[in-house]
Amino acid sequence: MSSSLQTIILQLQEFWAAHGCLIGQPYYTQVGAGTMNPATFLRVLGPEPWNVGYVEPSVRPDDGRYGENPNRFQQHTQFQVILKPDPGNPVELYLQSLEAIGINPRQHDIRLVEDNWEQPAISAWGLGWEIWLDGQEITQFTYFQQVGGQSLDPVAVEITYGLERILIALNNAASIWDEPWGIGVTYGEVRRQDEFEQSKYYFETADMTRLRQLYDLYKAEAEACLDQGLVIPSYDYVLKCSHTFNVLDTRGAIGVTERQAFFGQMRDLARRVAETWLEQRKEQEYPLLKGMGEQTTENNRSVQSRTSQITTPQSLLLEIGVEELPASDLDSAIEQLKINVPRLLDDLHLEHGIIRISGTPRRLAVMVDSLTSRQLDRLDLVKGPPAERAFDKVGKPTPALIGFARKNGVESSALETRAMEGGRYVVALVKQTGRPTPDVLTESLPGLVAGIKFDKSMRWLPASRTAGNPTGVTFSRPLRWLVCLFGETVIPFEYAGLTAGRTTHGLRPYSSPEIEIPAADKYFKIIGKNDIVLDVEERKALIQTGVRKLAASIKGEAIMPPELLAEVANLVEKPMPLLGGFDKEFLALPEDVLISVMKNHQRYFPIRSVEAHGSPLLPSFVIVRNGDEQGLDLVRQGNEHVVRARFADANFFVREDLKHKLENFRPRLGTLIFQKKLGSMLDKNERIEKLTKALVPMLSLEADEAVFARRAAHLLKADLVSRMVVEMTSLQGVMGGEYARRDGEAPAVAEAIGEQYQAVPHTRPGLAVALADRLDSLAGLFAVGLAPSASKDPFGLRRAAIGVVQPLIELEINFDLRSALESAASLEPVPVSDEVQTQVLEFITGRLRVVLMDMGFKHDIVEAVLVVQSDNPAGTVRAVRQLSVWVARPDWNTLLPGYARCVRITRDQKKKFTVKSEAFSEAAEKQLFAALEKAEKRERIPGSVDDFLNAFVPMIPAVNEFFDKVLVMAEEKSVQENRLGLLQRIASLADGIADLSKLEGF
Amino acid sequence: MSSSLQTIILQLQEFWAAHGCLIGQPYYTQVGAGTMNPATFLRVLGPEPWNVGYVEPSVRPDDGRYGENPNRFQQHTQFQVILKPDPGNPVELYLQSLEAIGINPRQHDIRLVEDNWEQPAISAWGLGWEIWLDGQEITQFTYFQQVGGQSLDPVAVEITYGLERILIALNNAASIWDEPWGIGVTYGEVRRQDEFEQSKYYFETADMTRLRQLYDLYKAEAEACLDQGLVIPSYDYVLKCSHTFNVLDTRGAIGVTERQAFFGQMRDLARRVAETWLEQRKEQEYPLLKGMGEQTTENNRSVQSRTSQITTPQSLLLEIGVEELPASDLDSAIEQLKINVPRLLDDLHLEHGIIRISGTPRRLAVMVDSLTSRQLDRLDLVKGPPAERAFDKVGKPTPALIGFARKNGVESSALETRAMEGGRYVVALVKQTGRPTPDVLTESLPGLVAGIKFDKSMRWLPASRTAGNPTGVTFSRPLRWLVCLFGETVIPFEYAGLTAGRTTHGLRPYSSPEIEIPAADKYFKIIGKNDIVLDVEERKALIQTGVRKLAASIKGEAIMPPELLAEVANLVEKPMPLLGGFDKEFLALPEDVLISVMKNHQRYFPIRSVEAHGSPLLPSFVIVRNGDEQGLDLVRQGNEHVVRARFADANFFVREDLKHKLENFRPRLGTLIFQKKLGSMLDKNERIEKLTKALVPMLSLEADEAVFARRAAHLLKADLVSRMVVEMTSLQGVMGGEYARRDGEAPAVAEAIGEQYQAVPHTRPGLAVALADRLDSLAGLFAVGLAPSASKDPFGLRRAAIGVVQPLIELEINFDLRSALESAASLEPVPVSDEVQTQVLEFITGRLRVVLMDMGFKHDIVEAVLVVQSDNPAGTVRAVRQLSVWVARPDWNTLLPGYARCVRITRDQKKKFTVKSEAFSEAAEKQLFAALEKAEKRERIPGSVDDFLNAFVPMIPAVNEFFDKVLVMAEEKSVQENRLGLLQRIASLADGIADLSKLEGF
Repeated sequence: MSSSLQTIILQLQEFWAAHGCLIGQPYYTQVGAGTMNPATFLRVLGPEPWNVGYVEPSVRPDDGRYGENPNRFQQHTQFQVILKPDPGNPVELYLQSLEAIGINPRQHDIRLVEDNWEQPAISAWGLGWEIWLDGQEITQFTYFQQVGGQSLDPVAVEITYGLERILIALNNAASIWDEPWGIGVTYGEVRRQDEFEQSKYYFETADMTRLRQLYDLYKAEAEACLDQGLVIPSYDYVLKCSHTFNVLDTRGAIGVTERQAFFGQMRDLARRVAETWLEQRKEQEYPLLKGMGEQTTENNRSVQSRTSQITTPQSLLLEIGVEELPASDLDSAIEQLKINVPRLLDDLHLEHGIIRISGTPRRLAVMVDSLTSRQLDRLDLVKGPPAERAFDKVGKPTPALIGFARKNGVESSALETRAMEGGRYVVALVKQTGRPTPDVLTESLPGLVAGIKFDKSMRWLPASRTAGNPTGVTFSRPLRWLVCLFGETVIPFEYAGLTAGRTTHGLRPYSSPEIEIPAADKYFKIIGKNDIVLDVEERKALIQTGVRKLAASIKGEAIMPPELLAEVANLVEKPMPLLGGFDKEFLALPEDVLISVMKNHQRYFPIRSVEAHGSPLLPSFVIVRNGDEQGLDLVRQGNEHVVRARFADANFFVREDLKHKLENFRPRLGTLIFQKKLGSMLDKNERIEKLTKALVPMLSLEADEAVFARRAAHLLKADLVSRMVVEMTSLQGVMGGEYARRDGEAPAVAEAIGEQYQAVPHTRPGLAVALADRLDSLAGLFAVGLAPSASKDPFGLRRAAIGVVQPLIELEINFDLRSALESAASLEPVPVSDEVQTQVLEFITGRLRVVLMDMGFKHDIVEAVLVVQSDNPAGTVRAVRQLSVWVARPDWNTLLPGYARCVRITRDQKKKFTVKSEAFSEAAEKQLFAALEKAEKRERIPGSVDDFLNAFVPMIPAVNEFFDKVLVMAEEKSVQENRLGLLQRIASLADGIADLSKLEGF
Repeated sequence: MSSSLQTIILQLQEFWAAHGCLIGQPYYTQVGAGTMNPATFLRVLGPEPWNVGYVEPSVRPDDGRYGENPNRFQQHTQFQVILKPDPGNPVELYLQSLEAIGINPRQHDIRLVEDNWEQPAISAWGLGWEIWLDGQEITQFTYFQQVGGQSLDPVAVEITYGLERILIALNNAASIWDEPWGIGVTYGEVRRQDEFEQSKYYFETADMTRLRQLYDLYKAEAEACLDQGLVIPSYDYVLKCSHTFNVLDTRGAIGVTERQAFFGQMRDLARRVAETWLEQRKEQEYPLLKGMGEQTTENNRSVQSRTSQITTPQSLLLEIGVEELPASDLDSAIEQLKINVPRLLDDLHLEHGIIRISGTPRRLAVMVDSLTSRQLDRLDLVKGPPAERAFDKVGKPTPALIGFARKNGVESSALETRAMEGGRYVVALVKQTGRPTPDVLTESLPGLVAGIKFDKSMRWLPASRTAGNPTGVTFSRPLRWLVCLFGETVIPFEYAGLTAGRTTHGLRPYSSPEIEIPAADKYFKIIGKNDIVLDVEERKALIQTGVRKLAASIKGEAIMPPELLAEVANLVEKPMPLLGGFDKEFLALPEDVLISVMKNHQRYFPIRSVEAHGSPLLPSFVIVRNGDEQGLDLVRQGNEHVVRARFADANFFVREDLKHKLENFRPRLGTLIFQKKLGSMLDKNERIEKLTKALVPMLSLEADEAVFARRAAHLLKADLVSRMVVEMTSLQGVMGGEYARRDGEAPAVAEAIGEQYQAVPHTRPGLAVALADRLDSLAGLFAVGLAPSASKDPFGLRRAAIGVVQPLIELEINFDLRSALESAASLEPVPVSDEVQTQVLEFITGRLRVVLMDMGFKHDIVEAVLVVQSDNPAGTVRAVRQLSVWVARPDWNTLLPGYARCVRITRDQKKKFTVKSEAFSEAAEKQLFAALEKAEKRERIPGSVDDFLNAFVPMIPAVNEFFDKVLVMAEEKSVQENRLGLLQRIASLADGIADLSKLEGF
């Protein structure tokens, strides 16, 4: 029998009621999510426990699709669960609830995919996951860290089910509309007309003036209520503000600056509401603290250390069981352990064999072979008091000395005096008897775990339960178990409310069975038997092989960028690739859209044809499931439905966008703020247009190229306000190009727009607009003080700078960065001082340096060229490359010194001397002058190292002869100056080429 | 284990889902009731089936009590069920659902109390009941007749559970606050702070200007959406209008006129929404007509009439099973059957014995003893063509005659010619052979049932199923079964989709068991055995006895007005009186409040002490339960909790009201419209003040009385805007008096205000203000054309007129109605013409006539006085009384003719003649003149019949002598005129007294 929306709801209510949740009701005003319901927003604040579950029909105007999309609507039905405090096993409870509504984990692919939730309108954030069922996001699972600007303690677990998507998956349906709501009535019959009407209202009908008035009135009422200390009435109006804002936004009425203002207002209100509520609860002495009762089931299993009997080296196993780590956090944790474990063992003076660190999203495993059973005994030198204060005038030990001796357990007589740290001190040689390894590890392993750090960490334990860790316990995701075996013996260290034991857990799709590890050295075998692929590289290899095989089976080749492979490998414990497909008709969508959806959204590997011309995409892709082969068909179908819905959605956006010409989007750029002082995106676009015009001669564009470039510049940023780009930002530029093409713009124009965000545009008009865009950003943002700092680069200026340098290099185009930047500076609405311009150029040079280093050039060569000709990156590279060849020559060590002699002797002269040829008296100097004149006459390409050195090399015999025979610093001033002038002219042969003095061996 | 709010919800969802309902969700905008949710409002429209159940947290701002009332709050939780079409047993389903949540009908008192539901804001109405559980209204059960201005076909059944009250009852609790919401968390912990804050917001904080703006914006958006054909978005805004209106209303911002305007707007919008929705559904060809499938389970039990074998007279039983009839409808139905049944049997020529008609709320029973088994054979005289057209010139029968004969099945030769109807006609004597009684009844009983009419009837069957009854089947409440037995044989007539059989149903508290009636004459016995008291009078007697006994047991006497007794007797099938009580502290509330709550709201019998001085109320009352003695304690406690909550509520109102002086309420009367052309209640109050001042001398009030009257007039209507009166209109005046007293007004002032609505105020200031009030209404409303018609008297002007007459009579106060009315007229804001004033006086005279007739006076006497002195009702009565005594005198037939002779002979004279005493010539006339002069000199009280007749009687001998001796109509004109003048003066002795010519025997 198929499920219905209402059976799911009834089952979830029953499940969570049986697990101690209150069952609540949807809120009585439009909310975008169950989170906004005060049963979440308010109740997660403060110390009181709170467990609740309720349905929340969630209204999100901009998700309206006129009832045309299979699984996206302006109103969807959430089931919201709050568990506060964390019950310790919320993921397991959640998975049980899925089983309760009929989702067998063996038949499906359930995935926890990193998601860092944030809701700026209510000043809230948390860490957790999207939970995917066969590729479909069916649940948001979050450990709230902050709500209403308040840090949560205890942390609350939020589980938000998307019921429509669950229903689709349960019934293996392609769309929601024909699925049953209840007996005999479909979802579509209940809701489809509503979807159409509301979409029409939100996108077309809603009156913007009236809605703005509504917003203002709501805000005023919210404030009036707050002034009276009325939390709920005020919060009701905050919610109404929020919904009204969403409608305005959907209607396209809100610019970026304004958006910030709106968010600021709502955030402030939400914060005040939260604060007032907390005060109230405090005054009321937290009534629910008595009610629900804290379930402090201490799991002090009273483990005693009976481990000191071990006398031979043993394997050490440490497994840190954790809820699904984000892919990059898993990599990072492994890297850290690879450094920290050996360091720890060394610090602890524990001898050991090979160390292996591996991990999956749910476990970090450390295996140490042959770990000694006991620390080595050793003598530690302990510094005591200064010698002069150690003995009195008669040479008797002072109390200071006696105390020091006692403290270190040695006789005063056994102390020595040593010279150290610039003085003389009494020292004790203290014998440290090695302690048993288990004892040492029990003390120090908590520190090892605590020492793993992440970019974003979370709390999950109440502060009251992390008393031992004053800063609180944090990790990427909650720690759920610890296995620690030394041989066969448990090392029962404690951390984060857990005590290490020998029990680990199997695969999620197998319901995470408990698995006992009898001994450390059995671990790999047992884990393997339980279908877990512990090693990242092994998982990658399995995926790569599988994906290639599947792609080949349909005469295709998978698109498998390394970062995607790495991510996918870290999303599973047991990878199982399978092939999915989609309707051919979707191939009509821009390829970038298709790839972006598959790769970025779904983590699929797209497939290109190896047979057809131009390697077009095939309507297929490879999914990597977590688990074995059971239920693969269901998993495939589920994923196919998802991708179909996503493509349908893209189709919707594109169709909507195509109702207008790209040109017509352009004015709306005025509503998007680029940066407060630098104006709107429209302002920026206009600056780009002007700058492009200025760059045309600098890039020596042909006449037609210049026309294309200027047209492309005109339309450059227009797609930013298209629906497709608003939805998938990664498609900016790409969509602009696509829409330009469909509008009938010249292909070169479309191409230029399309490649504006590429690191290296391949067309010259594309290069022109990209440079204009990037230089504008650099000049403007530096000028308003937004140069990137070590850790922050919100505007991506590093990328912009590389984006200036790299194409010039790759396309080998000579360019005068300095004057281009001057042009850019002159167009900014704020003054860009010379100083700032220099900063920008230095910043670009910095990027250029990195590029050159990355190309493998030697540091000294790079520097030698950079100081001289960094304004022309293409030239720089050419010069560096040439110089590198020269430096690699076997005779370089004879060439360089010749030039160096000329430079070194003249380097400190402040004055430039004019050479008077008639004043030369000695042959060697006359000869050298003649050689110089010859060299100077050679034709040279500006900046060419080759030309310079080829000119110089013939002079070397004359240089050597000169220095052998002639005293440069002659007593007679005029003679000296003439000779110096000669050498100066030789040295300056390298002007505009490189500063060879930077070279090794100079 | 005690129930919790969430267990109830989960059980109800499960119950109704199992009974084929969709389970829906609360709506996302504030609504006052589940009815407003589009899952009801829209889906009940049109022909499509729709069965749904959902929770609806319903927001009613003016029910806010700051969390202080045990069961009344601004937000309560409804569970709403819609069954469309009527499944045939919705009440039974409902009662089963109560059992599903743990309410055992044997342990409680479940009552269906008439309630005619109406929601003007959405132009909707229906008939049904409040369902009471132990005196608590826990559910509204309605057969929707119209919604959004659209008649419903099929009719939808709406069941609206009040979950808080059910929870209170289930847990036998006194208040909601400490009852569990779910495990470990009380309702109060979840909602009480909210209640406080929202109450504060709605009553104190909400900004009226902003709310009005919100309302206007919502209305504009609703209209804009409708213009685009967007039903749901528009309806959302209608709901927002409605909620905003409710808040404004709670805030006291809405006057009566304005209220009408608001309602008009919302009603129009709701109607347009409904119409647009219906059009949409029609265009979509009613998709759900296919979906749910019509469950047309025809209960054609193919009953064959095999009844004609019966040959002896038998008892006939007709039992009409019906869902609980309103008390007055039950009385009315019985009355109609008492007339219609004998009439029907006579019309059908069926001989019969005694007919007994009885009934309970659930059944109407007709028992006919010894009903003949067959109609009598008889000869019917059938009129044919006129004789002259029956035979041709040669005496042969014309075709007309032959046709007539054939039609009546007789030979032409058997026809006769008779004189009739002023002509001669051919007639046939047609023999009608009597048909078997069962056959006749099968045909005619449907008409008997259909012939029962009610003030308000309802439809419940789809039009498609009442095809046989073109006007549709209607009744007071749905018919659910028919029992019809003729002796032992079923008469299987069909009506309203039912076929009569032998199965009846027992008591509701016994779960309405099916009961077979083997033979008509076993009916009473079986019904009695099943604890049903069929006869109204018997139930009344049982109640009366029981109530008296219980009251006596606590030394009290029950207040048992007949209309209450009659109603209560019609609310039960088996009455079971029991005693309940309440906290003594509530006795501090005004007695009228207490009695009003107990009597009017709860249908309890209040009890007065028979011992204490002044017979104060005792804190006790008698409940009459439907059923036996099981669970009486629960029933009592439940009722006690209810009354406590009601009294607490009254306390709340009184306390709120007492925050202001009565005087300060007065200005707000300006917001209450009395009548459009006559201004606000404040205008009326001001007119009353002025008129009272004018009446003071007319009523000869003492100086202090005048002061009191004028002060009372000033405050007279102020209580209309008090919260207590707004809540319980029946307390108008009473509360004003109470509040005046508490404000420290003079007791006489308070008393006058308090008795303003009493038929006969007992104080003279009270009389003054009451007369002013009533005369103002009469003058004003007649002037604007709102005089009552035969059927309509919306302003209660009959009562007002009686209210003018009756106190004047009872207090025997002479009064000049005509000039009082002139004063009233002069104060009205509209002209009150003389004609209108005369109409009013005649109208009052009409009432006075009724009063006098009711007092038992003879019609002619009443008329004789009325034509003369109706302007002074007290005088009229005095005169009528005196005249009646005279008329009753044995010598009246000698007295009256004497006077009559004087009148008769002068009656037609148009001229009034002057008597010249010197012109009398004859002794008899001189003598008569002397007698007249003597009579005229007597002192007489104006209007006194006694004085007049006592004056006249001594003249009688002279009168007789005069007529014997003197020829009045002498030939000489001057003599004649002098004599006529004399008689005219005698006749006019009765001027201002009575027109004796109206008397019998004149």
